[in-house]
Amino acid sequence: MEFKPYQHNAKYYETDQMGVVHHSNYIRWFEEARIDWMEQAGIHYDEMEARGIIIPVIGVSAEYKTMTHFRDTVEVFFHLDRYNGVRFAMSYQVRDAKTGELRCTGTSEHCFLAREGYRPVNLKRHAPDYHAIFASMLACQPELPPAR
Amino acid sequence: MEFKPYQHNAKYYETDQMGVVHHSNYIRWFEEARIDWMEQAGIHYDEMEARGIIIPVIGVSAEYKTMTHFRDTVEVFFHLDRYNGVRFAMSYQVRDAKTGELRCTGTSEHCFLAREGYRPVNLKRHAPDYHAIFASMLACQPELPPAR
Amino acid sequence: MEFKPYQHNAKYYETDQMGVVHHSNYIRWFEEARIDWMEQAGIHYDEMEARGIIIPVIGVSAEYKTMTHFRDTVEVFFHLDRYNGVRFAMSYQVRDAKTGELRCTGTSEHCFLAREGYRPVNLKRHAPDYHAIFASMLACQPELPPAR
Amino acid sequence: MEFKPYQHNAKYYETDQMGVVHHSNYIRWFEEARIDWMEQAGIHYDEMEARGIIIPVIGVSAEYKTMTHFRDTVEVFFHLDRYNGVRFAMSYQVRDAKTGELRCTGTSEHCFLAREGYRPVNLKRHAPDYHAIFASMLACQPELPPAR
Repeated sequence: MEFKPYQHNAKYYETDQMGVVHHSNYIRWFEEARIDWMEQAGIHYDEMEARGIIIPVIGVSAEYKTMTHFRDTVEVFFHLDRYNGVRFAMSYQVRDAKTGELRCTGTSEHCFLAREGYRPVNLKRHAPDYHAIFASMLACQPELPPAR
Repeated sequence: MEFKPYQHNAKYYETDQMGVVHHSNYIRWFEEARIDWMEQAGIHYDEMEARGIIIPVIGVSAEYKTMTHFRDTVEVFFHLDRYNGVRFAMSYQVRDAKTGELRCTGTSEHCFLAREGYRPVNLKRHAPDYHAIFASMLACQPELPPAR
Repeated sequence: MEFKPYQHNAKYYETDQMGVVHHSNYIRWFEEARIDWMEQAGIHYDEMEARGIIIPVIGVSAEYKTMTHFRDTVEVFFHLDRYNGVRFAMSYQVRDAKTGELRCTGTSEHCFLAREGYRPVNLKRHAPDYHAIFASMLACQPELPPAR
Repeated sequence: MEFKPYQHNAKYYETDQMGVVHHSNYIRWFEEARIDWMEQAGIHYDEMEARGIIIPVIGVSAEYKTMTHFRDTVEVFFHLDRYNGVRFAMSYQVRDAKTGELRCTGTSEHCFLAREGYRPVNLKRHAPDYHAIFASMLACQPELPPAR
């Protein structure tokens, strides 16, 4: 499996009066990267929702290393750390696209829920096609680069 | 009818690297003020949605007069300009809460739609209680202060 | 002069509970398109700021025609309507990238200010290179497609 | 020392198409609460910036327990966990204001930097008045309620 890191160009409205990108936006970039990764793997998030499955975030973390400025393009690298059919966890690295300099590392945790009623869903039973993708991803993906 | 202007305290994340509040946030403040105004009038937007009616924005405009800084509290004054059961239009003034200085004027236009199917809804027929509120609002409200 | 419309892929965090992109985001897309247009024309907004010139928004408007959903890619077409050295005005059209369907039309007005002191700046005197670009843009650009 | 939890009323534009508040907004609410806490303690963040000190976020985490809906008012409780003059760490709890139900727990870490040059600043030396406030806060504040 070969995945391309997700690219994002920092917007003017993402900056704050400190003159750099506001820290909350990295959490949104993780989401953009996560959705892009699923798409590259063959899972379209809007189709998943149409099939009645949502993926709420149950935890997120970020460590900010260096600052991102307006017009910088960053690359978000992602890694599936854990997956068991009902939950999964991911890691992220945000790097400057030109220099490779590390901007931010992060993690997120998720579960699968039925859109109606919010009860837990196990992909093994309810969406074996998605399960196969997550499982093979967990087995075959490359490691993230060292976080520096 | 007596309405209190809506108060908003400018957030750090609403600023951009120009050192002032990003212009797109005023459009969000109009929405906050509109929902607050409806609530003061007795229409709770979440109840309206629960009854199957949504109020999309079909037009919006803003003129920016002076800049709002982080920690400034602004007051948003609102006025129902037109209403006919299927559409309405509003005006807004954003003023500094301390000095009264005009920050921004604006307008918005809306229609009522059924949440399912997005077909137009006439409040006169489908929600006469809401219609009565809009109609009496149109008849009785005070004018906005002069825009300076 | 040949310009490519700006492309934006609608993000999950740009939707609201109506299930479509929140109307305030189109105002941000106008900005993204405006900055991209200037860049295509040879004006880098961060360089302009570094040279002490900022471009505040003094007015904005939008008319919403149809709804944009998560994962839709839109194209933002732009047109320089007026320019006189101290102010300019633009028009925008947001269209679905696949179908060409019109999502939104809009306008914005701007002035040039000195970053320090916020006094008006005339590009003719203070940045003749930028002036030449704006002036030739005004003379040579193609019209927007009809707004339907 | 007596502090009031920070109150926030969930906005329509903070929801996403899942029908609840998007998870990235809690990170912003932490910031709102942090700034409010400092203000209650006598430190005005805009004054601090005017004195040349900024407080970047170097880490943040959140665990989402239950969902916040449009119009819900939440209370954000905060606690200063560590402080040594150059860095500090905080904890947060977001609870429904009516029921007290726990929505989210979180943490953030910060350092003090000179606005110009971004070199580390020690409050003990450069802002003893702020240091005194942080130090007495660390000594005297009440614990957060148990996280359930």
